[in-house]
Amino acid sequence: MNLYWFSLGTGVVSILLATVYLKIIARFDDGTKEMIEIGKAIREGAMAFLFREYKTLAIFVLVVAGVLAIFIHYATALCFVIGAISSVLAGFLGMHAATKSNVKTASAAQKDIQSALKVAFSGGAVLGLSVVGIGLFGVVALFMLLNEFFDDNLIKVTDIIAGYGFGASSVALFARVGGGIYTKGADLGADLVGKIEANIPEDDPRNPAVIADNVGDNVGDTAGMGADLFESYVTSLIGAMVIGAIIFNDPIGAAIPFAICAFGIIATIIGILVVRPSKGDSGSHEEQTKKARQALNKGVLTSVILAAIFSFLVMYLISSQLPEAGPTWIGIFWATLAGIISGLLIGVSTEYYTSDTRKPVRDIAQSALTGPATTIISGLSVGMFSTAFPILITSAALFVAYKTAGLYGIPMAAVGLQATIGIILAMDGYGPIADNAAGIAEMAGLGRKTRELAEALDSVGNTTAAIGKGFAISSAAFSAFAMFWAYTKIVKLETISLNSPLVLIGLFVGGLLPVIFCALTLGAVGKAGFEMVNEVRRQFREIKGIMEGTTKPDYKKCVDISTRRALAEMMPPGILAVVAPIIVGFILGIEALGGMLAGSIVVAFLLAVLMSNSGGAWDNAKKYIEADHLGGKGSDAHHAAVVGDTVGDPFKDTSGPSLNILIKLMSIIAMIFAPLFLKFQLL
Amino acid sequence: MNLYWFSLGTGVVSILLATVYLKIIARFDDGTKEMIEIGKAIREGAMAFLFREYKTLAIFVLVVAGVLAIFIHYATALCFVIGAISSVLAGFLGMHAATKSNVKTASAAQKDIQSALKVAFSGGAVLGLSVVGIGLFGVVALFMLLNEFFDDNLIKVTDIIAGYGFGASSVALFARVGGGIYTKGADLGADLVGKIEANIPEDDPRNPAVIADNVGDNVGDTAGMGADLFESYVTSLIGAMVIGAIIFNDPIGAAIPFAICAFGIIATIIGILVVRPSKGDSGSHEEQTKKARQALNKGVLTSVILAAIFSFLVMYLISSQLPEAGPTWIGIFWATLAGIISGLLIGVSTEYYTSDTRKPVRDIAQSALTGPATTIISGLSVGMFSTAFPILITSAALFVAYKTAGLYGIPMAAVGLQATIGIILAMDGYGPIADNAAGIAEMAGLGRKTRELAEALDSVGNTTAAIGKGFAISSAAFSAFAMFWAYTKIVKLETISLNSPLVLIGLFVGGLLPVIFCALTLGAVGKAGFEMVNEVRRQFREIKGIMEGTTKPDYKKCVDISTRRALAEMMPPGILAVVAPIIVGFILGIEALGGMLAGSIVVAFLLAVLMSNSGGAWDNAKKYIEADHLGGKGSDAHHAAVVGDTVGDPFKDTSGPSLNILIKLMSIIAMIFAPLFLKFQLL
Repeated sequence: MNLYWFSLGTGVVSILLATVYLKIIARFDDGTKEMIEIGKAIREGAMAFLFREYKTLAIFVLVVAGVLAIFIHYATALCFVIGAISSVLAGFLGMHAATKSNVKTASAAQKDIQSALKVAFSGGAVLGLSVVGIGLFGVVALFMLLNEFFDDNLIKVTDIIAGYGFGASSVALFARVGGGIYTKGADLGADLVGKIEANIPEDDPRNPAVIADNVGDNVGDTAGMGADLFESYVTSLIGAMVIGAIIFNDPIGAAIPFAICAFGIIATIIGILVVRPSKGDSGSHEEQTKKARQALNKGVLTSVILAAIFSFLVMYLISSQLPEAGPTWIGIFWATLAGIISGLLIGVSTEYYTSDTRKPVRDIAQSALTGPATTIISGLSVGMFSTAFPILITSAALFVAYKTAGLYGIPMAAVGLQATIGIILAMDGYGPIADNAAGIAEMAGLGRKTRELAEALDSVGNTTAAIGKGFAISSAAFSAFAMFWAYTKIVKLETISLNSPLVLIGLFVGGLLPVIFCALTLGAVGKAGFEMVNEVRRQFREIKGIMEGTTKPDYKKCVDISTRRALAEMMPPGILAVVAPIIVGFILGIEALGGMLAGSIVVAFLLAVLMSNSGGAWDNAKKYIEADHLGGKGSDAHHAAVVGDTVGDPFKDTSGPSLNILIKLMSIIAMIFAPLFLKFQLL
Repeated sequence: MNLYWFSLGTGVVSILLATVYLKIIARFDDGTKEMIEIGKAIREGAMAFLFREYKTLAIFVLVVAGVLAIFIHYATALCFVIGAISSVLAGFLGMHAATKSNVKTASAAQKDIQSALKVAFSGGAVLGLSVVGIGLFGVVALFMLLNEFFDDNLIKVTDIIAGYGFGASSVALFARVGGGIYTKGADLGADLVGKIEANIPEDDPRNPAVIADNVGDNVGDTAGMGADLFESYVTSLIGAMVIGAIIFNDPIGAAIPFAICAFGIIATIIGILVVRPSKGDSGSHEEQTKKARQALNKGVLTSVILAAIFSFLVMYLISSQLPEAGPTWIGIFWATLAGIISGLLIGVSTEYYTSDTRKPVRDIAQSALTGPATTIISGLSVGMFSTAFPILITSAALFVAYKTAGLYGIPMAAVGLQATIGIILAMDGYGPIADNAAGIAEMAGLGRKTRELAEALDSVGNTTAAIGKGFAISSAAFSAFAMFWAYTKIVKLETISLNSPLVLIGLFVGGLLPVIFCALTLGAVGKAGFEMVNEVRRQFREIKGIMEGTTKPDYKKCVDISTRRALAEMMPPGILAVVAPIIVGFILGIEALGGMLAGSIVVAFLLAVLMSNSGGAWDNAKKYIEADHLGGKGSDAHHAAVVGDTVGDPFKDTSGPSLNILIKLMSIIAMIFAPLFLKFQLL
């Protein structure tokens, strides 16, 4: 069918375009010898971590593949391995680009904001285009191949393809958790001793943890996030395929999401090309920043609006091929649109709760006047309030999607959201690059102006990043819903009844899992940070001349600590996520497992929003005070705000985002292992 | 039937015994003129708050009673008013005793720990005996009366009696929330300026908020807690009656819980009488404290073991009257026992996570060495971990109760737990009295030794209080479960299916409610604390001679601020709890409302345990450091630990415990308004 080849081709184009952006980045200047050296240290640290992480993951992947091959199906095992490799590839490409473009961004920032924006955004674009390109290509190619092998047995094919999602999800979980622990452990250590005890600025080269901190931005915020959104992308597609196969019993159920994603990639590419801040140095610093922000927003909005229009056209053109039974073309379009709109609205709400121009962040800043305790309380309170809107919006979108297109509407809402994830990732991926550039500018002593410019660049992405977060959370919820229903269909459960005490127990256990997962990840960051603090303190104490700038600190030691800690600490939460649904499935049975999935989706959603938004709000409350409000830098209020920010760091960059993956991973595991649970049952 | 009159009589005996303890308290010495004055100020502040709170509540009660009379049944409205009044009465009696015995405890502490323990424990006993006495008497009396009026139509009678639970729950919610905001707002204000800024010790008479702080202990920890456990007690009974009426269709379903509670009161009275620390001043300070602790533990264990034995006997004797269909006598006993044991086990786990002799608290103290941020992170992590055991234990108990006695087993597990709540309340109620006594000793300048003794007395109750918390949380969960199933029976829903998107939306909204509820209560404490901080700062600035001790601060102003704030801020969360189930019921329907109840139970349970335990752990980490560990008082680690403790205060004394009430209140509202939802439906 033409649509398949078209989708496959779009995926390839996206990957090719990513390599073009890599070439564009290469043309930019690397800056001074010192900058090149710093850049090299960061890249080497990041690569060393990734390779060790992949080595650890390889063992896990092989073991799970063995289990799948023996107990489920050899093809599922194969898909699992391919999914894992694809995810690694997407994350790796993105990080490769990021560690190339950070120095170049710093160098370009010496000129003007437009050039710097161009490099940094190109780096982000590589990540975005790789993720969607590899994702779509992988799913479509497997679908076509498996259909050949299994004689178009749709139910079987989609069942097996779930293995691809499982592979992507596992890698995503470990990458997100490991990267998150790395980056926030290093950050915590660097900040606690550097900023608070030794009173040296952020990214000061005298801080032994400074390289580890910058490495962390890459392995956590770039590679981790890439794997995360890769997983959302493919699980949304798979969810739509699985439910589509059941509802339509026709390959059209898979062709629709493929087409929408393919056109989404086209919309994404157009959006990326639109991002061109007007040249010329006319205008003040603020004005230029504003222009850059407008350029980014224009790109995102262009993509999203185009994707919505394309979806309408796709559904209209496809309408004649839709089977009589099942949802209508316009119904599917409404469901898709409901997803897109809910993503945007959640983005707006994220922006409201975390922007320093709005009341919530101002309130937190105000409460910093009475010390760290009130800062923490008000930040938590803001985070809690911020869950209301996303929950209500998602509920409304779920309602609309279901009413307009039945069960098929739910994964389609997720697919609608995911269609433009490429440009949103580009935007998100550009943040850590700009952040790194600011660090490099500081370390290489490029002067205050360059650093300020790089920081302005970083702040530009904040608003757009909020929309990205909205999309990520929304899509996680919809993908998880889709997987949940796919699960109920696969185990053929007409009802999962809350009246059954076993289901209620499942619900309880399901609610417990995200909480324990957060406890593990928070604790891990605490431990990694604690070890880093002691190491930094030791270096300050034992290595003479660090503070005077005459001796260089031992950066490698700190990088090594972060690497070891992150790898060790990522295992318990990761294994919990994989093992829990299997244990519940075997002991309490398939109905209770359904309850568990529902319970974990609800609690994880709430916690994810709470933690991301509290973290973001604390961060910006601190920045607000640093912008000479309420006493400014160095005041008591500032110290209190720094405490809030430090608590918020693992909230927003480690625990919070990992929860999105947790629920999808558990749902997909339930789906894949369902046949086994049906065979063996303990209670 | 004899059992009814027997239960009624036991209730009366319990109330009478409470008045006997009031007389015993009156015999003790009031101390110096200064102490009497301070005690009077505290009592007047507390009573003033209670009366204003009751006035506000009266309006609410009348409005709701009107609604009930018009839309449900005049008898339900009447029961509602009686339930509200009963709850007020129980809380008031307890607080009356507490505000009498605090000064006397301080005075007795000048002699020895035994006398002080005796007064304080007598004060707690008044609370405990009033709550269970009034509770059992009220429910049994109403049951007997209503059976007369409605010709033994059991379903109707139990439906109507639910109004009594609704009344008790509403008062409990407002009392808990209002009291919680009062006490922690005042505490926050007093600590932030007093301890941290002005560097004066706790309870220093120079601190303008010191009286408000002590008033808070009474209105929050005594009156609020009394209303809370009164509600647990009666809703457990009602849950058993409602489900019993449906399952047995025979009054035996009500007689069983009455009998078990009546014998529970006898066990409680025996336990209270057992609490007699061995006289004589022999032995060191620590040894005496240890003896006092042993005496308390002995009392609780005696009651619990006796109650278990009595339950067995009751069930055995009743066995011949049990209808053939339905659970067996031994099955019901196992269910009851499962409840009792789960309460004890959760108590043990609470003790583990919050005791300063165990690893979690030590870890938090350790993390205080690296500042407030790591203190907060590790405290939250401990709180999150601490949810695992209670969730798993409750799930296991739920499973056992259901397997041994079917649906009837679930409320019976709650009843088993509640049977001995009297002595647990006595123990809990004794804490704030000792706390107050320590404050009075400080303010009246009774010297270091007396104060230390009063503080030791306070710490004695900590372990036993942990068991109390375990019972409270466990019983809240079981009562809520019971109400949940009672709801499904009343609306005749065979299944509440998670496969239905509406139910899933209900689940989401249900999960959201406890989070928003916490955001409101946390925010309220923050606001009240902030206003208090500003007032205390103002007084330090404007009233000359406070710090020198030559002028007295304006205590009344601070008491007034707390009162106003608490009353204003308790309304939004209270109204949310009442209105939310009604809105969901009308808009999304009865099935989605079932989902909402389940979602809120899961999330509220998790949050309640998390917040209570984090708060307790931070508190004890601070105390551990104050006991000359890791730098001791005044060290940086201590400052960090104080931040943790301050954050933990509203966690453990405002938001956390209110959640228990929230879920029961929402369930009972769903139950009562169910007939209306069946008639009118929006979607």
